[in-house]
Amino acid sequence: MNPIDNAALSATLSHVRIVMVNTTLPANIGSALRAMKTMGLSKLVLVAPKTYPHPDIDALAAGATDLIEQIEIVETLEQAIQDCHLVFGTSARSRTIPWPLLDARPAAQKSMQAVTQQNQEVAIVFGREDRGLTNEELALANYHVTIPVNTEYGVLNVAQAIQVICYEMRMAAMELAEVQSDQSATMQVIDGQSMHWDEPLVTHQDMDKFYPHLETMLAEIEFMDPNNKRLLPLRLRRLFGRIQLDKMEYHLLRGIFSRVQAMRHGTWTPSGKSTTDHEDQS
Amino acid sequence: MNPIDNAALSATLSHVRIVMVNTTLPANIGSALRAMKTMGLSKLVLVAPKTYPHPDIDALAAGATDLIEQIEIVETLEQAIQDCHLVFGTSARSRTIPWPLLDARPAAQKSMQAVTQQNQEVAIVFGREDRGLTNEELALANYHVTIPVNTEYGVLNVAQAIQVICYEMRMAAMELAEVQSDQSATMQVIDGQSMHWDEPLVTHQDMDKFYPHLETMLAEIEFMDPNNKRLLPLRLRRLFGRIQLDKMEYHLLRGIFSRVQAMRHGTWTPSGKSTTDHEDQS
Repeated sequence: MNPIDNAALSATLSHVRIVMVNTTLPANIGSALRAMKTMGLSKLVLVAPKTYPHPDIDALAAGATDLIEQIEIVETLEQAIQDCHLVFGTSARSRTIPWPLLDARPAAQKSMQAVTQQNQEVAIVFGREDRGLTNEELALANYHVTIPVNTEYGVLNVAQAIQVICYEMRMAAMELAEVQSDQSATMQVIDGQSMHWDEPLVTHQDMDKFYPHLETMLAEIEFMDPNNKRLLPLRLRRLFGRIQLDKMEYHLLRGIFSRVQAMRHGTWTPSGKSTTDHEDQS
Repeated sequence: MNPIDNAALSATLSHVRIVMVNTTLPANIGSALRAMKTMGLSKLVLVAPKTYPHPDIDALAAGATDLIEQIEIVETLEQAIQDCHLVFGTSARSRTIPWPLLDARPAAQKSMQAVTQQNQEVAIVFGREDRGLTNEELALANYHVTIPVNTEYGVLNVAQAIQVICYEMRMAAMELAEVQSDQSATMQVIDGQSMHWDEPLVTHQDMDKFYPHLETMLAEIEFMDPNNKRLLPLRLRRLFGRIQLDKMEYHLLRGIFSRVQAMRHGTWTPSGKSTTDHEDQS
């Protein structure tokens, strides 16, 4: 094994942010910072924390004061993840629609591949102490991540969960660093995947325009009742969330939606011979 | 993935004991019990604890009272490990005489193999909050075990270290259980990783009908020139190929394609008020 390059690992891990939503106990924020620092992560985003700042945060984050100074406070989860490509929501419960679900270890491996091979920004989102993340918040994630536990006893508290996730992130980063240093070739094949992508991937912010466009189109062609959407929007988010579109695919699909809309509105009509091709009503 | 058999995992993990030497803070004992119980471990041995019993133990071990009742108190480390086959001493520092040193993950894998294949009893020994284990105590171990951390910052406290070790023990036990169980069953591999899903995934054969349908639709709405398709079919295959659609998503998308086609052919028209909604050409 090569000697560990802490600086290189920290640089990689700086692209993974921990997001805590509506945290009540300052001690949990302090413990999170300590867990992060120990494992080499540095970016904590707090979404509408209940109590901030608070001396307990500093007390429990002993020695991680540089991370306290870098904390980012935002009002909504959307703000916390808008420039992220890959978002994981932590969830212990199974939901109405199961989301693509990864255990902590493969989730960390996927994150580190996304960072090192595609320069992506990754967010791991943790919910409230008492009730976790809402279904709406979980639907903003590409994947859900869970830590395997003894389900007969219960779940980890948020500080313990952050500890395990940060540990797995560091382990995955170390594994990748070893693979990179051991292989002279530039091509990396990990878990049977080789991901060299020609186009930049879309961010969460891009997808905030994609889903409304898709839904509007589906409503206009009466595939979806806008007053009774049922599970359709959730299914579409789950589908395109796990695909991670690149920019070209994104524009391609939105182009198709627009074409369908234009046809529906009559602002686009088929070219020349179309009416002879089919028995149109016109 | 097979449903997790908590009872079987707990039976395996009951052969791994956590040993805490000269612990000062009762809160750390409570946290250790909680971490153990969450991961399915049950046996805690305390070597000459400084403060025991104490209400903080019960408070922090909330819900793990059965483990409190099973705690064993002994005077010396030798007593704690006398019936063990495999003993790991936790150590952050390098010692005068280098010992066989394993990271937490391979240590857990080795432990689980020892338990399941050779019916061994395993101990993981944790030292004092302030100065860990003595050289004499470390010399009683077969191996030393360490948790990879950002060495520039410092080490985990004992409760965090027990959390990570117990987590790795459970992961290793689960891996072994999966290897042993029938792998062909309902295990799905997506992105080279195992994932839990509610719907069966489509086969390659299904997709052989999907792409022609999509291309026909795109040709009919003149988004793609059938005589000059360029890279579009390839891009669509790459896009939907990496998503691995499930059956419901597959039918959902093909339903959308059919609706668009029907609109194009005039075999479907928008309901009642549509012509007043938009200035249709008809």
